[in-house]
Amino acid sequence: MKAEIISVGTELLLGHTINTDAVYVARELAALGFDLMHIQVVGDNAERLEHALKDALQRSDIVITTGGLGPTKDDLTKEVIARVAGRPLREDGQCLSWLKEYFGSRPMSENQLKQALMPEGAIVFANPVGTAPGCAVPCGNRQFILMLPGPPRELVPMLENEARPFLLGLDSNVIHSTMIKTFGIGEGAAAQILDDLLDMANPTVATYAADGEMFVKVTAKAKDKAEAHSIAGPVIREVKQRLGNVVYGENVPSLEHVVVKELIKTNRTLATAESCTGGLLSKRITDQPGASAIFHLGVVSYANSAKENVLNVSPVTLQEYGAVSPQTAEEMACGIRELAKADFGIGITGIAGPEGGSVKKPVGLVYIALDCEKSIFVKEIKPQGRYLGREWVRNMAASRALDMIRRLIADLPVIEN
Amino acid sequence: MKAEIISVGTELLLGHTINTDAVYVARELAALGFDLMHIQVVGDNAERLEHALKDALQRSDIVITTGGLGPTKDDLTKEVIARVAGRPLREDGQCLSWLKEYFGSRPMSENQLKQALMPEGAIVFANPVGTAPGCAVPCGNRQFILMLPGPPRELVPMLENEARPFLLGLDSNVIHSTMIKTFGIGEGAAAQILDDLLDMANPTVATYAADGEMFVKVTAKAKDKAEAHSIAGPVIREVKQRLGNVVYGENVPSLEHVVVKELIKTNRTLATAESCTGGLLSKRITDQPGASAIFHLGVVSYANSAKENVLNVSPVTLQEYGAVSPQTAEEMACGIRELAKADFGIGITGIAGPEGGSVKKPVGLVYIALDCEKSIFVKEIKPQGRYLGREWVRNMAASRALDMIRRLIADLPVIEN
Repeated sequence: MKAEIISVGTELLLGHTINTDAVYVARELAALGFDLMHIQVVGDNAERLEHALKDALQRSDIVITTGGLGPTKDDLTKEVIARVAGRPLREDGQCLSWLKEYFGSRPMSENQLKQALMPEGAIVFANPVGTAPGCAVPCGNRQFILMLPGPPRELVPMLENEARPFLLGLDSNVIHSTMIKTFGIGEGAAAQILDDLLDMANPTVATYAADGEMFVKVTAKAKDKAEAHSIAGPVIREVKQRLGNVVYGENVPSLEHVVVKELIKTNRTLATAESCTGGLLSKRITDQPGASAIFHLGVVSYANSAKENVLNVSPVTLQEYGAVSPQTAEEMACGIRELAKADFGIGITGIAGPEGGSVKKPVGLVYIALDCEKSIFVKEIKPQGRYLGREWVRNMAASRALDMIRRLIADLPVIEN
Repeated sequence: MKAEIISVGTELLLGHTINTDAVYVARELAALGFDLMHIQVVGDNAERLEHALKDALQRSDIVITTGGLGPTKDDLTKEVIARVAGRPLREDGQCLSWLKEYFGSRPMSENQLKQALMPEGAIVFANPVGTAPGCAVPCGNRQFILMLPGPPRELVPMLENEARPFLLGLDSNVIHSTMIKTFGIGEGAAAQILDDLLDMANPTVATYAADGEMFVKVTAKAKDKAEAHSIAGPVIREVKQRLGNVVYGENVPSLEHVVVKELIKTNRTLATAESCTGGLLSKRITDQPGASAIFHLGVVSYANSAKENVLNVSPVTLQEYGAVSPQTAEEMACGIRELAKADFGIGITGIAGPEGGSVKKPVGLVYIALDCEKSIFVKEIKPQGRYLGREWVRNMAASRALDMIRRLIADLPVIEN
């Protein structure tokens, strides 16, 4: 079944608010197997909303509106839906009792009482955290307009507890999506490797680039979960086999999530010594709840004095090879591992820019050392092509460091390409 | 002039990506005085994109597309725009030379070469951080389609440096916007203080909440820059006077930007000792180019052993008051200041959650100490209302620490409310 979202609110058109509602609804629709073809955003304007609703009903079975349900003058979604569906507003007993319960002994204004009105024949959705109920309004040719509130903290529970069961009753198809995540390959290169697969219809295969990583999404549509799995399975395996060990996980939140989980599982600890990344690596590691089990100490040694005094980097090394050198990275990694008494030590030093580069050591040059006591690995990241900014250099360095640890734990070559 | 946004990408319809592009473009359009009436989102589908473009051209002067410019097969925005505008694709010399510069000595695939094609007669927009250039394509009745890339890190600079000047040239009015940035006041409280100002027509005054901060935007529209300034000036002064010392800057990029700049200006150094923020504070400080002048050392002391061994926190303090206590925060701040020989030392310890809380020390409790040798300040952040997540707690703690330094340098009360 075809679905469509209309988000209502002038604040969305002014760029004051980000349309997270559309994301929540889109995800739910995808999970339920609906085909979402369009999202529209219109302001708090009855005429334009009416046009948008009529357009949507010409091409979709289900139209979901978000926003415009409050008690103020510019909240007019319900009135417009009632008009488009040809179902006049009537006081709804259930809604009135919810309102009374919500306000308790507090006084209720006339505007607030308006929230007990519903289009005739609507299936009402409860709002456990706000005053505006939602609903599903039958209209046209076995079509429905679903009306949901705008604030995400009201929308999300209503979507899950009320709209979802309603939608489930309408369609029997199931969608199954798998996100294969990689680090160390570009989208262009991946698209060439996967070329023929990208043309498939069911499952579909699509590539996404995000923050220096590359994801491949495999999406199957079928009558039930088992069939969707059996359609997607062979393609997922094929994608993973072609991409090889740049794949770091399937349906995992992030590289740092995988690394922290593997360290916990193998009962090993990691310590970080960061120069150019300035704490970004330790920040990403400690983004993970439970990271304290595997991460005890990180040092941001931005100045040479800090490298010498805290990490025990030799002044001779700093003088002879410079702060940005494989030798300094190694001594940082070794120094932090010993200071923290950790299993693994990471040292990162480089030039994030935009200033501070030279002909011999250009902006973007980074050295990452991973010391695991028995051996030490050093990766050189050479700037290639155009400088993509300080944030990009820092983020790529932190990601590369995480990927080196992942590879070490998984017994893969730590340094590749 | 009427404007409209079309965001292209199946990932937006699947709820995989949030449409931040639309927010950036909407804000820019509002600031420039364009009336944005509609936002549409369509998938990577030529037919539906063509329909969306034709609809948009029937009601708007300017149509801005975001996304669908990459090198892969499902990136088809440019082809469809060329068709709708009746301007066939031709190789553009400028775009080709940018591409060659980007790739340097690396090989370029045929797909990537496609990115040098542009609709005939298009005004080309440079992409300083990616391979896909944008453009403005003249069409219809003095209308333009503007084509921008999807990744926000490519879109934002192109929007500011290329699309904005182009759009400015279309309208003779001048828009002057000033963003007043604050930390330490909520949007609701600010809206009450500014109530009457929020109803003004020219300049307009609007509040924005973002990551625990609150911004007030004053926007004036006038014939020329001088007139816009003179309209906005008195209102800007009024807003700042009413809000008082929670205001940390005007048109500044961030709190950390202000703090690093002030430290450089006053020739003082800062060192950080972080527990619950895990490196986020040092990351935000070192996000600023040139931070090395004022930041030499940060320590992420996640474990008690690290607090004792590296920061010299007394085991008695840890045992008696616990790792999350004002006493431990003080000793961390003092320890790092001495270790780094810095002017200021910051110590942060708290419970970011979701696990690890207790009745006496609930999730969300954070202590921040600022040691400036002569005196030491400790701020307690008590959890209020609902838990908003680990990222929120960590970010608020880092922001509060930065604000304490700002207040100290500016001779304001360091601890307020």
